[in-house]
Amino acid sequence: MSAASELNADVTALARFSATNDGVTRPAWSDELFAAYEWLAGRGREAGLEPRIDAAGNLRLEGHLGTGERIVAGSHVDTVPHGGRYDGALGVLSGLDAARALAREGESRLPLSVIAFMDEEGTRFGTALFGSQAFAGADLSALGGRTDGDGIALADAMAARGFPFGELPAARGVDDVAAYLELHVEQGPVLEHEGIDIGVVTSIVGLLALEARMTGEANHAGTTPMRLRRDALAGAARAIGELRDLARAGSEVTANVGTIAVEPGGKNVVPGVCTFTIDVRAATRRRFAALDADVRGIVGRIAEEEGLALEVSELYRLEPAELDAGLVDVVELAADLEGASTLRMPSGAGHDAMMIAPQRPSAMVFVPSRRGISHSPQEHTSPEHCELGARVLAQAVRLAAR
Amino acid sequence: MSAASELNADVTALARFSATNDGVTRPAWSDELFAAYEWLAGRGREAGLEPRIDAAGNLRLEGHLGTGERIVAGSHVDTVPHGGRYDGALGVLSGLDAARALAREGESRLPLSVIAFMDEEGTRFGTALFGSQAFAGADLSALGGRTDGDGIALADAMAARGFPFGELPAARGVDDVAAYLELHVEQGPVLEHEGIDIGVVTSIVGLLALEARMTGEANHAGTTPMRLRRDALAGAARAIGELRDLARAGSEVTANVGTIAVEPGGKNVVPGVCTFTIDVRAATRRRFAALDADVRGIVGRIAEEEGLALEVSELYRLEPAELDAGLVDVVELAADLEGASTLRMPSGAGHDAMMIAPQRPSAMVFVPSRRGISHSPQEHTSPEHCELGARVLAQAVRLAAR
Repeated sequence: MSAASELNADVTALARFSATNDGVTRPAWSDELFAAYEWLAGRGREAGLEPRIDAAGNLRLEGHLGTGERIVAGSHVDTVPHGGRYDGALGVLSGLDAARALAREGESRLPLSVIAFMDEEGTRFGTALFGSQAFAGADLSALGGRTDGDGIALADAMAARGFPFGELPAARGVDDVAAYLELHVEQGPVLEHEGIDIGVVTSIVGLLALEARMTGEANHAGTTPMRLRRDALAGAARAIGELRDLARAGSEVTANVGTIAVEPGGKNVVPGVCTFTIDVRAATRRRFAALDADVRGIVGRIAEEEGLALEVSELYRLEPAELDAGLVDVVELAADLEGASTLRMPSGAGHDAMMIAPQRPSAMVFVPSRRGISHSPQEHTSPEHCELGARVLAQAVRLAAR
Repeated sequence: MSAASELNADVTALARFSATNDGVTRPAWSDELFAAYEWLAGRGREAGLEPRIDAAGNLRLEGHLGTGERIVAGSHVDTVPHGGRYDGALGVLSGLDAARALAREGESRLPLSVIAFMDEEGTRFGTALFGSQAFAGADLSALGGRTDGDGIALADAMAARGFPFGELPAARGVDDVAAYLELHVEQGPVLEHEGIDIGVVTSIVGLLALEARMTGEANHAGTTPMRLRRDALAGAARAIGELRDLARAGSEVTANVGTIAVEPGGKNVVPGVCTFTIDVRAATRRRFAALDADVRGIVGRIAEEEGLALEVSELYRLEPAELDAGLVDVVELAADLEGASTLRMPSGAGHDAMMIAPQRPSAMVFVPSRRGISHSPQEHTSPEHCELGARVLAQAVRLAAR
């Protein structure tokens, strides 16, 4: 069996650790996740890596057993409910594949470690990027009381698995990382649309999520003259249009209104209240810094013009992570050496690399997602692109290790 | 007790027949409604009117007991849940007040009948304007299977009260109506806003209710470039704006989008589907006739420009009812004689008069609604305006009887 087909067999094998048949369901701290860890630990040993699980529930497959700096290939193997088999998993499995390739080349003391970070998705407890934050030394002590849909607190779910919540700080491991590399499916349509093999990620966009609530006056839709209405949905509709204009004005920004609700919500009642979420992203720190004021300026001006009261609350904010210029060049060179076509691009989605990048040189390799679909059983990347991505990752490790 | 304060005492007394303390709840065919009928029948007898309930459950308080044409003052005493004490009730009670006034003037054979039509609101079975439709001779045979929230069919609810559904055609009574007059609270803000006592209604607007469903493609809000999105909510937002522009372009039209929903409805997911309702109204037949094409033209063009699939379905359509020019003049003259300031205006809400107007001369008297609020416990019309409205109604009956 070639290294290439071994990787694709691993993708199929790992997908079997799932709570559902309809897509892969492998939540953080679940039986399925730990069964997957056990299988991965075995695959790691076969590749010459030493498995252990750290205090944050990250599975570390350690290659460089001596002191000093190491190269880490990381991603995650938790999934959203009914997710795909590539999101996260392909990054960990291609790291293993690279380790096997390097071992075949006679490396006795591998400079590569592979890490599966715990709970990247955050679906269960609302604690996305949990393991990579702990690895980066972030203070997560406020998260212990977060509960899942069954009312189980994170700290209790961890304790039940033998992980005392208070020992989280021991998971810090970023300090001896020489370079962090993450291969991931693009989860977007750009590579397929452009016919490109490999995305060389230059930054991970910053994300600002806001909730806006516009309040006018609910009125009878037949008896209230148009000029006497204060229609909250009419205000929101203008904001939706202008936020799109803002994003279209430059290639660096995206904007999305993905949820909207009106009150009282009667066909013949002028909406008195409209609540909607705003998800805006920017690829550079400079552009991201202005986004908050841009968005608040738009909704504030419209609310004033429409005679609506306005409340805007911040749901979350993740700063953009600009990746290491030198390591990005390494990824591009590695792809060139493998004969892959490349496109430099930002990542529009968050990844574990966001947590490592502010402290240590980090870069990412994207492989194409069919029709851009992710977080779905329809998620797909061709076997050829999986293999090519893994070869690029191995090549990048070789180049970085020099 | 003067006639004026007798009317306001009646408003208070009738409001007590309610299933709730928080506003008036008196559904069609309910115990509360029939208890109110019994009380109204007694008040009618005291005024010299002969009560009976027709085959559609309309309470008729008959004044002209001979053959020939009669003047009818009508409205309804059913309510929405937690409604106000004036909507409908004031029309019936002011009719009674007019009858008392005429009787005091020595009319032995009153030319006036007062009718409380069954189920104007339609809240319980979705059968609005039920009694007035039956009175007008409409074929209601298709409605017997309509069920309420408890699964009770209309035909069974009627049978339980002793009203065989099959006998509905016997409720036809429009043919010997010489003139139909309906006093009603405005349920809108115009009279109060303009400082006017009495609205002289010239027409009841036609109503077209549509549901539009725009379908694009759900995508990740971070990884999908703006130019590759087919955002169903962005299309709906444009439609909301342009429908408002359509209504603002002329005083004859109103437009409202009162409900909206997106799928899948995630903050970080571009909306793939957006469903929204459109309520458009016009006061004249000429303008109403063009509305359907106007609205479909707007949403159709936007859907095409946005690359969205579009389905539009008609929820209901009520043609405008233009009121009788001569009888409208009579109402205006009656108001002048009572010293009331007047404003000619369309009714933006539906009323029982819509059903009578196509067959017999009909007109309406509006009294001001505080802040335009209706269908709410906060619904209010001042005692002075209630009394003034009743005097205008009585005066209009006197003028019409000549």
